[in-house]
Amino acid sequence: MLMMLPVIVALIYKEHDMLFPFLIPAVAASLAGMFFMTFKPSGRYKASEGFTITALSWLFISVLGCLPFVISGEIPRFIDAFFETVSGFTTTGASIIGKATTSLSIGGNVENMSRSILFWRSFTHWIGGMGVLAFGIALFPALNKRTEEGSEAHILRAESPGPTYGKLVSKLRFNARILYGMYLALTLLEVAFLSFGGMPLYDSLVHSFATAGTGGFSIYANGVMHYNNVYYEMVMAVFMVLFGVNFNVYYFMLIRKFTNAFKNEEVKWYLCIVGAATGAIMVSTMVRGIYSTVGEAFRYSFFQTASIMTTTGFASADFTLWPAMSQVVLVLLMFIGACAGSTGGGLKVSRIIILVKTAIREVKRSVKPKSVYLVRCDGEAVEHSVVMNVCGYLIVYVLITAVSTIIVSFDGYSTTTSFTAVAACFNNIGPGLGDVGPLGSYAGFSVLSKAILSFDMLLGRLEIFPLLIAVAPTAWRNR
Amino acid sequence: MLMMLPVIVALIYKEHDMLFPFLIPAVAASLAGMFFMTFKPSGRYKASEGFTITALSWLFISVLGCLPFVISGEIPRFIDAFFETVSGFTTTGASIIGKATTSLSIGGNVENMSRSILFWRSFTHWIGGMGVLAFGIALFPALNKRTEEGSEAHILRAESPGPTYGKLVSKLRFNARILYGMYLALTLLEVAFLSFGGMPLYDSLVHSFATAGTGGFSIYANGVMHYNNVYYEMVMAVFMVLFGVNFNVYYFMLIRKFTNAFKNEEVKWYLCIVGAATGAIMVSTMVRGIYSTVGEAFRYSFFQTASIMTTTGFASADFTLWPAMSQVVLVLLMFIGACAGSTGGGLKVSRIIILVKTAIREVKRSVKPKSVYLVRCDGEAVEHSVVMNVCGYLIVYVLITAVSTIIVSFDGYSTTTSFTAVAACFNNIGPGLGDVGPLGSYAGFSVLSKAILSFDMLLGRLEIFPLLIAVAPTAWRNR
Repeated sequence: MLMMLPVIVALIYKEHDMLFPFLIPAVAASLAGMFFMTFKPSGRYKASEGFTITALSWLFISVLGCLPFVISGEIPRFIDAFFETVSGFTTTGASIIGKATTSLSIGGNVENMSRSILFWRSFTHWIGGMGVLAFGIALFPALNKRTEEGSEAHILRAESPGPTYGKLVSKLRFNARILYGMYLALTLLEVAFLSFGGMPLYDSLVHSFATAGTGGFSIYANGVMHYNNVYYEMVMAVFMVLFGVNFNVYYFMLIRKFTNAFKNEEVKWYLCIVGAATGAIMVSTMVRGIYSTVGEAFRYSFFQTASIMTTTGFASADFTLWPAMSQVVLVLLMFIGACAGSTGGGLKVSRIIILVKTAIREVKRSVKPKSVYLVRCDGEAVEHSVVMNVCGYLIVYVLITAVSTIIVSFDGYSTTTSFTAVAACFNNIGPGLGDVGPLGSYAGFSVLSKAILSFDMLLGRLEIFPLLIAVAPTAWRNR
Repeated sequence: MLMMLPVIVALIYKEHDMLFPFLIPAVAASLAGMFFMTFKPSGRYKASEGFTITALSWLFISVLGCLPFVISGEIPRFIDAFFETVSGFTTTGASIIGKATTSLSIGGNVENMSRSILFWRSFTHWIGGMGVLAFGIALFPALNKRTEEGSEAHILRAESPGPTYGKLVSKLRFNARILYGMYLALTLLEVAFLSFGGMPLYDSLVHSFATAGTGGFSIYANGVMHYNNVYYEMVMAVFMVLFGVNFNVYYFMLIRKFTNAFKNEEVKWYLCIVGAATGAIMVSTMVRGIYSTVGEAFRYSFFQTASIMTTTGFASADFTLWPAMSQVVLVLLMFIGACAGSTGGGLKVSRIIILVKTAIREVKRSVKPKSVYLVRCDGEAVEHSVVMNVCGYLIVYVLITAVSTIIVSFDGYSTTTSFTAVAACFNNIGPGLGDVGPLGSYAGFSVLSKAILSFDMLLGRLEIFPLLIAVAPTAWRNR
């Protein structure tokens, strides 16, 4: 059904060659769906089953979603099309398609691609941002009535980002329809703002999809730099920050519980980090003479900070040319990421809060081992199992980054390129530093590296555990 | 007293100018010591007090230890001499003294420095390796009889590396004399092996000091490459690995408890990582054509792996010219570090074991939240408070690395140089990548960066918490 939208785009732009590349996978998906519908789940399913359904579904839609690229011949090799589609659905925005400055290009320059394919490419961000399966649950609640209540919670838990602590547990029971309603409303608001400033409707649609999902695919070889328009950049930067906020906050605003909305600790930290990082980059670029006025420095520093921290990955400047301090700040922002319950990736601000508070507690406890110190968030004690889960998450996170970097570095790119390629894919950002900067491309990596990076994007988007659990033997033993 | 050794060296080599630069601080230290002796500690002191004593003592000996450099004029600026001395005592081996390829040089080339100063410089590694205060406790047990039993445990705990879990708690009560006896014996064994191969006695002494403390200062501009001798390299590599082993293992061998010695899980992991890293670097350098024969690849891969993993920092090859994969492996080894209870730095293998096992447990627990999984080491369950302490340590570790890198990167060096300078100092290694590689120098950093890197070296050597606790308000509140 979702593939009907690019079909409409193809009809509008008279790209008749592009009809079959979308219709064939659409029909295939429908047939597969009808086939799977004949299996009726009985009773309530377990966490490991819910997690596995999510992991397999994401693999399945990535394979389906890449077929238009392959069939149309716009990205002929399967591994490239798969990488690009995983990058789309996971809202990473890392691309193997040729850009301005790189000689490594597959399927030619992005500006020569058809309108409908580019529309589909950006639309995958929008679908993936709020969750593919959540979309299904929102649209077809009838399907879920067959299973016992609470079963879909495992799927929503696997798909929605961030740790669940305290009140955020309510997010599981959060109505997927309300969530998608707010998501759509915010997206249309951005389309309106961009169109109001003079951006063509097609352009404002694809850029709004990419902003909403915190994806980052653009339709120009030099991305957002193409426009060189302060108004567009500020609108997009503000909306990137908005889409990086925990959606619970918007829900509280919607139901007029403003006190709940404004006392959210995560959002406060999030905005403080955006402010601090913007300031640090402004100082470092101005000291090194990259920008001469405060206004100019703010324009580029704020946009890049918003883009990297929310893991969107748009670039209004080639930050690979920035001084080291700015780059170090950007790499740190890559790992911090956006708020839990937003469309952004990374470790998530709420995890950082829990980790920092846990560290402080441990320092205190090494002085007075017998005292009891609690980790508090939003004024309430965080359950011990959540603290341990977040610590475990950090460790697995570091391990996956390390192992992936070793494998990818075998391709012979510089250490900076290899490390930031992994960081940018795993945290669902898109561009890194070095050869994978905003004007670079992932085209030159080997098939093995592209497969590893694709897996990292999925691991990052589904927050590791569901995918690990799907392949772990313990989950399936003693059934 | 320790400064009498370089005085003897100065007399042997007839460096009469160098007598006062050592005698003045030696007399100053003696007077200060006598002054402090008039304060008699009453009763047993608390952990926070023990930790603070350790932190202040390390600062004090670093200031005292740098006076010979300043007074002799061989390193005229205080901050440079302080950096060099902290680097020595913390067994880091990062140097601001000019080397072969760098134009940034302070106090001229290392080969033009006097014999006695170079001896002192390397001797600081040996003193710092096993602990400055442990040395005092070993030599003057009488001093401790004045305080209640168990008080010195806090000092030994603050100074000895690694988490304390299970049987390792016994390390606190470990007789400091036996420890220093084994340390001296191993050092003399290396001196014997190197001299046997034809190395001059002076050279074999300073290189053995640097190996024993896992420091890494050399007396030649191009370090160990000066000799280009396979025998020396293999002897040093093997001894580096030996000094990176938990000294408990040697103690068990000494008291003929061989089963205890051989079932040590940490040492097994440690040797496996050395083997795997050597293999990975061999493959990556041979594929890229750096080395053509397996023998040559092994010679350089094993030496560099042993040197970086044990955080010694000697280099028999300029690994800044190695392919990306080798460099990524080396950077990871920097963070892993040697075994707990050895003279090496880094996170320590035992912490890595606990972290990996905790991560696996958390993945398991996210499937079956109600099951109880224990983290086990050496067959015994690790106490929960130790697991939390190690997690807290990892978080603080990551935070300090991040903040230090931001500050140091302001100097304008590349991101790789800035990051690996912090990694190499914090983990007490010495050389990093880029401009701080084996043939580079730390001379070009600003005063602020040198101060931050010196603090990082102390944080790394004392394992963070004692230094943090010394400045934390909670430790001193409610006394």
